[in-house]
Amino acid sequence: MEKQLKNDAITSRDVDFAQWYTDVCRKAELMDYSSVKGFIIYRPYGYAIWEQIQKHLDEKFKATGHENVYMPMVIPESLFQKEKDHVEGFAPECAIITIGGKNKLDDPLIVRPTSETLFCEHFAKVVSSYRDLPKKYNQWCSVVRWEKTTRPFLRGSEFLWQEGHTIHRTKDEAKHETLMMLDVYNAMGKDLLAIPFVTGQKTEKEKFAGAEETYTVEALMHDGKALQSGTTHYFGDGFAKAFGITFQDQDGKVKNVYQTSWGVSTRLIGAIIMVHGDDNGLVLPPYVAPIQVVIVPIQQAKPGIMNKCHELKERLEKMNLRVKLDDTDRTPGWKFAEYEMKGVPVRIELGPRDLENNVVTVCKRNNHEKIQISIDRLEDEIPQLLATIHEEMYQKALKQLLNSITEVHTYDELKEVVNVKGGYAKMMWCGCEECENKIKEDTNATSRCMPFDQKPFMDTCPICGKKATKVVLFAKAY
Amino acid sequence: MEKQLKNDAITSRDVDFAQWYTDVCRKAELMDYSSVKGFIIYRPYGYAIWEQIQKHLDEKFKATGHENVYMPMVIPESLFQKEKDHVEGFAPECAIITIGGKNKLDDPLIVRPTSETLFCEHFAKVVSSYRDLPKKYNQWCSVVRWEKTTRPFLRGSEFLWQEGHTIHRTKDEAKHETLMMLDVYNAMGKDLLAIPFVTGQKTEKEKFAGAEETYTVEALMHDGKALQSGTTHYFGDGFAKAFGITFQDQDGKVKNVYQTSWGVSTRLIGAIIMVHGDDNGLVLPPYVAPIQVVIVPIQQAKPGIMNKCHELKERLEKMNLRVKLDDTDRTPGWKFAEYEMKGVPVRIELGPRDLENNVVTVCKRNNHEKIQISIDRLEDEIPQLLATIHEEMYQKALKQLLNSITEVHTYDELKEVVNVKGGYAKMMWCGCEECENKIKEDTNATSRCMPFDQKPFMDTCPICGKKATKVVLFAKAY
Repeated sequence: MEKQLKNDAITSRDVDFAQWYTDVCRKAELMDYSSVKGFIIYRPYGYAIWEQIQKHLDEKFKATGHENVYMPMVIPESLFQKEKDHVEGFAPECAIITIGGKNKLDDPLIVRPTSETLFCEHFAKVVSSYRDLPKKYNQWCSVVRWEKTTRPFLRGSEFLWQEGHTIHRTKDEAKHETLMMLDVYNAMGKDLLAIPFVTGQKTEKEKFAGAEETYTVEALMHDGKALQSGTTHYFGDGFAKAFGITFQDQDGKVKNVYQTSWGVSTRLIGAIIMVHGDDNGLVLPPYVAPIQVVIVPIQQAKPGIMNKCHELKERLEKMNLRVKLDDTDRTPGWKFAEYEMKGVPVRIELGPRDLENNVVTVCKRNNHEKIQISIDRLEDEIPQLLATIHEEMYQKALKQLLNSITEVHTYDELKEVVNVKGGYAKMMWCGCEECENKIKEDTNATSRCMPFDQKPFMDTCPICGKKATKVVLFAKAY
Repeated sequence: MEKQLKNDAITSRDVDFAQWYTDVCRKAELMDYSSVKGFIIYRPYGYAIWEQIQKHLDEKFKATGHENVYMPMVIPESLFQKEKDHVEGFAPECAIITIGGKNKLDDPLIVRPTSETLFCEHFAKVVSSYRDLPKKYNQWCSVVRWEKTTRPFLRGSEFLWQEGHTIHRTKDEAKHETLMMLDVYNAMGKDLLAIPFVTGQKTEKEKFAGAEETYTVEALMHDGKALQSGTTHYFGDGFAKAFGITFQDQDGKVKNVYQTSWGVSTRLIGAIIMVHGDDNGLVLPPYVAPIQVVIVPIQQAKPGIMNKCHELKERLEKMNLRVKLDDTDRTPGWKFAEYEMKGVPVRIELGPRDLENNVVTVCKRNNHEKIQISIDRLEDEIPQLLATIHEEMYQKALKQLLNSITEVHTYDELKEVVNVKGGYAKMMWCGCEECENKIKEDTNATSRCMPFDQKPFMDTCPICGKKATKVVLFAKAY
């Protein structure tokens, strides 16, 4: 009945990246499939990663003045249709409730694909004076978007996310909010996930349905594809006009509010897997890891071993570390493979010889380095080790990201980058959707963003030859 | 534009309890209605109460060995129908998705009214050996049950809850889990909500669809009605048989698992309102209150006042208290009414004379007592005061609960209790559903539970005259 060494069964990353990804999702026990396509089960280990992300972001949201709320999971079709661009963007993906309590519904209900319309309807009711502004709300929930092609965490018919929705007295305040929340996401990537993002603004073609401006954080996966990992939207007063969200300002005039929304989702779990993972499975950045340290006893029947292991666990937990002691009767070899597959950042081994020398053997998941640490110095060494691992993982990902951005001067160069080399083709662009469409048709790459650093390096767009106005990054993307 | 004193507009509790309840829900800004009946908006102040409940319970769940997961929000009709009693209980309340991505679905999807079937399907896939047991899972989510009559927090077509689902190797272990989680709920009532519960087992008629045994914590509302506030269910191996959740035991035999589920919902917010509230609005128990202390400056333009208020706020926040300083230009009178309506447990007033004497004036929301506290002793006095308020609120509610349980010896006495006096009629019962049905038809009261303390006080059931076997509490309920 002994479970097989789990990483025997993993496809190599470089042989079949898609299969490797699915293998890791399943064998690290992050998720399981349900009987409905595109609706996955978040198993304890996968959900625990999401809880760490929630905890981190929820604190940042509150520190920046946001409050959590909960809106209904359903939107009447009639309400959903109020903002024209928005409904066009989402209508093809809607799941619709037509029966409630055995009766056919007169106004069918859309299961929320996103909640702008619900927030707008509520804002219109509760705001009347400039004194009521700003409202800075967030909600944690799941949304449903009917997808044809689905992949665990990356694209699902249901996924977990947070959606922030804010309204403001002035355009400037709303724009500031939009960029501030992008900073929050960017910092979360660096500090929690050890993932460097490329940040910038989406083109007209790629922006959110109903937004005036969309900003994005984009991560680079190991296979050279980009993953949109979080977006923030500035709506101007478009929704305010459609939904009548007005307030009387201090000068006595009635005005429209300016609005934003922003979100990240369980897609971030996909990003963690594909940025950091290796052929032994998941590699988790220490601060998002549900288990930061696993203690594996060697020859656990020998006197003193288990006692000392329990002591180590207690001491590390007192440091607020997340620690697991595996005291099952599996072999050490099985345990090593298990926690490698699960990407636990630090493994501590303790055997009779270690005990004798008052040391533990410590193995770093990210690069398989083994070191010995004096048991007396555990409280100093382990937190420092986690910080080192985080930094090493971030620097490795950053190096890969920087190497993946290639300036292109001709259409052929762009094709070479997105089709062969991988990563981002940095191109001077005329600003026309036609050129974006052509690139997409020819190569399947899309414009990921216009990075904030807009240093021009050519005068003309290599696609159409017209005057170039923007630096844009193109890449294939999930 | 000055907002009216809010409690001007509240109906008195004793004039119209139902209207008072709705007034409090709206004017304390706990919730708002959406455009779909039965689907409410949890506004920041209401949602923050739920977050406190979540935080408290989530810690207890994890401390008792549970892990969080997330299951899909939809259940295929075919899956839902696998357990006969279960589907019969829930079918009339289902909301059904029949269209996804513009296409009619072959197997319509029920929006989860509860997730036993989803957990069962998953358990059957991931459990094969006794080594895989127990699985102790919980999820935080919303569920949808199509209700004809809806009231904020008490009965909604969508509500927020947690649902625990566990499977075990033995009957005893599952039964232990069922009662342990009832204890967790009961302790949460006492320690967090300052609400004493009556606890016991549901009768056959009142138990959960598909359960062998259902246990309940029941709270008593100010108007003498009961509110079922949390339930735990022991399923035996009924679901295991229907879904094929088997495991190979240590003795080599293949066996069914034994199962439980348990849940509490945002209904608890309704309980808090109706147990503790008064004619000035909400009265929040200190440990669940989103704002525990509000600081109201008096004559805030006078020198030193605002500086000192900020200092007090900082000092209290260092004690991990949740503190709000209202530095808006509203009048103190407006602020007093506002935070009374919102039920903030402690109000600290600081005016020029207080500042001169190095004291603050402190007002307790639960009984309007005013005391003076030396500013130097704030760190000692305020946490103590919160503990006192909690204890006073609990003892008051306990006294009311104990006074509300009336032993009845005849059917007339029972009618008198449930129709006139209010509260629980404690009756010796024969065990027949016919008698429960008769009581419900005649009085609209239902059996709330068979309390754990089963000290008999009569030999016959006063309804049918047959031999009495159980002590049962009957009451009208929400």
